[in-house]
Amino acid sequence: MNFPSSTITDLFKIKYPIIQAGMIWVSGAKLASASANAGCLGILGAGSMKPDLLREQIKSAIRDTDRPLAVNIPLLYELAPEQIQVALDEGIKIFFTSAGSPKKFTTKLKDQGCTVVHVTSSPELALKCQDAGVDAVVAEGFEAGGHNGRDELTTMVLIPQVVDAVSIPVIAAGGIGDGRTMAAALALGASAVQMGTRFMMTGESSAHKNYKDLLVSTKSNSTQLSLKELVPVRLIKNHFFQLINKAEEAGASKEELIKILSKGRAKMGMFEGDLSEGELEAGQICGLINDLPSVADMVKGLLAEYQQTLSLFK
Amino acid sequence: MNFPSSTITDLFKIKYPIIQAGMIWVSGAKLASASANAGCLGILGAGSMKPDLLREQIKSAIRDTDRPLAVNIPLLYELAPEQIQVALDEGIKIFFTSAGSPKKFTTKLKDQGCTVVHVTSSPELALKCQDAGVDAVVAEGFEAGGHNGRDELTTMVLIPQVVDAVSIPVIAAGGIGDGRTMAAALALGASAVQMGTRFMMTGESSAHKNYKDLLVSTKSNSTQLSLKELVPVRLIKNHFFQLINKAEEAGASKEELIKILSKGRAKMGMFEGDLSEGELEAGQICGLINDLPSVADMVKGLLAEYQQTLSLFK
Repeated sequence: MNFPSSTITDLFKIKYPIIQAGMIWVSGAKLASASANAGCLGILGAGSMKPDLLREQIKSAIRDTDRPLAVNIPLLYELAPEQIQVALDEGIKIFFTSAGSPKKFTTKLKDQGCTVVHVTSSPELALKCQDAGVDAVVAEGFEAGGHNGRDELTTMVLIPQVVDAVSIPVIAAGGIGDGRTMAAALALGASAVQMGTRFMMTGESSAHKNYKDLLVSTKSNSTQLSLKELVPVRLIKNHFFQLINKAEEAGASKEELIKILSKGRAKMGMFEGDLSEGELEAGQICGLINDLPSVADMVKGLLAEYQQTLSLFK
Repeated sequence: MNFPSSTITDLFKIKYPIIQAGMIWVSGAKLASASANAGCLGILGAGSMKPDLLREQIKSAIRDTDRPLAVNIPLLYELAPEQIQVALDEGIKIFFTSAGSPKKFTTKLKDQGCTVVHVTSSPELALKCQDAGVDAVVAEGFEAGGHNGRDELTTMVLIPQVVDAVSIPVIAAGGIGDGRTMAAALALGASAVQMGTRFMMTGESSAHKNYKDLLVSTKSNSTQLSLKELVPVRLIKNHFFQLINKAEEAGASKEELIKILSKGRAKMGMFEGDLSEGELEAGQICGLINDLPSVADMVKGLLAEYQQTLSLFK
């Protein structure tokens, strides 16, 4: 396998420069351990787990793989400090933090000997992450599912600018889901790719079957960036999406919008399979993906297509 | 030079799979002939030219190069049929049509022995272009400057889906401006790249000096997709942008918005250099580009960086 850089595979001690994104309700022990066993970095998405559940999930993942595992901590949730403590207690050494300031926990985690990665959506924020002492950044484009930046920079224009702005390794995210998009992201200067939707659409993710089946037939234009003023998030345009958009258009206050959002809508949609009333996060790349393989088969197919793509340039 | 496909270089009889986009007020005879002489396809942007001026510009471009030249005809303007006739009269054999139905002129142009390319922004529209008989499509992502699609699909997710949907060659546009982004676009399956902002930011483009100087220091987040309901267009966020956005937010009718747009604002901004009151079209990639070289030097540098990018995968 020819990869242009080994900075990320060396940093995480993984075989392939592929990161399975930490996603709420979707990336538990089963997905993280399967990803790790397939040679990628597996990440437990702590955002949707209370500390006890997170502890149980970390223990379970460690039982199922002897490879490195990481935890993603969205810093916008109150439980973040507790989640970090649980992960440290359970021996997690790689942390992906997002949705908050990289200054908040980086020093504490580095002092404990951990590797820290922060998610960013602009060259300016990437520089702030570097200044805060992180080991690498995830640069996530406009096409990515779930929470997103305000600048609307796409992966194509974001990655080379972040690569130019910082001296630490850059992990590309947003719009990556097959061997071609992986090759493209590495050509842009990324040292690795992070994929969310592609890993969500596997047998091992904990997305509900209803949701997985919907994603198989979903087109790229079925998603839209929503709640741009409050917290930009890319969603499938279902009934809940219409509801929240109408409320926003009608001038609902931040508090009212948070109230609609907070009714366990993400769990209802992605974990419990209510495709109408639930919140369904997905990236634009869902339009390219039409199958639900095992993680091992998906990674195998993706790497074969990646090699095939490179061979075209010879 | 290793390019994964020769379908576009063969189709247009050009050296490199690089297309200089047809842009209103910016791509006249000087830019098109310089692009052609540098081994790319040079395109005259007819959208901002009355038929007599277009005739003069085609004659002038042909005087300055013996390489193939093309004309871009935005079909939303009334003068499109006349512009096409002028181009045919002057011996133009390659037409890029955009902003309208590919069914409108493709058969007529093909009957005259011309090569026809239509600009699209979704896999579904690309299929319609193929059905209309075009020779190739330009697939243009959300990050592109100027007129844009409604689906907001980025180049990263759009190109592989269009490549999978059609059997004709695909030219990638949107977010391409250096050797890395070119390599990425070709990895996605495109047979060539089309660049607008990068060619606008050269000595030979007819963009006003004020505008070129502004672009050198402009960041990617200085642009935004505007007028999403009427005709989505990516603009620099200047005073005119605020004006049109406020009018739209205040519920201005389509007619009122067209009235504001039609006051020669694009000419005022891009051609006459009024950076406050004029309409300034640019792609997100402007943030990556910080120089104003000659076309020949720009192409040379871009190809060197492209080769350098490929060498990283060996």
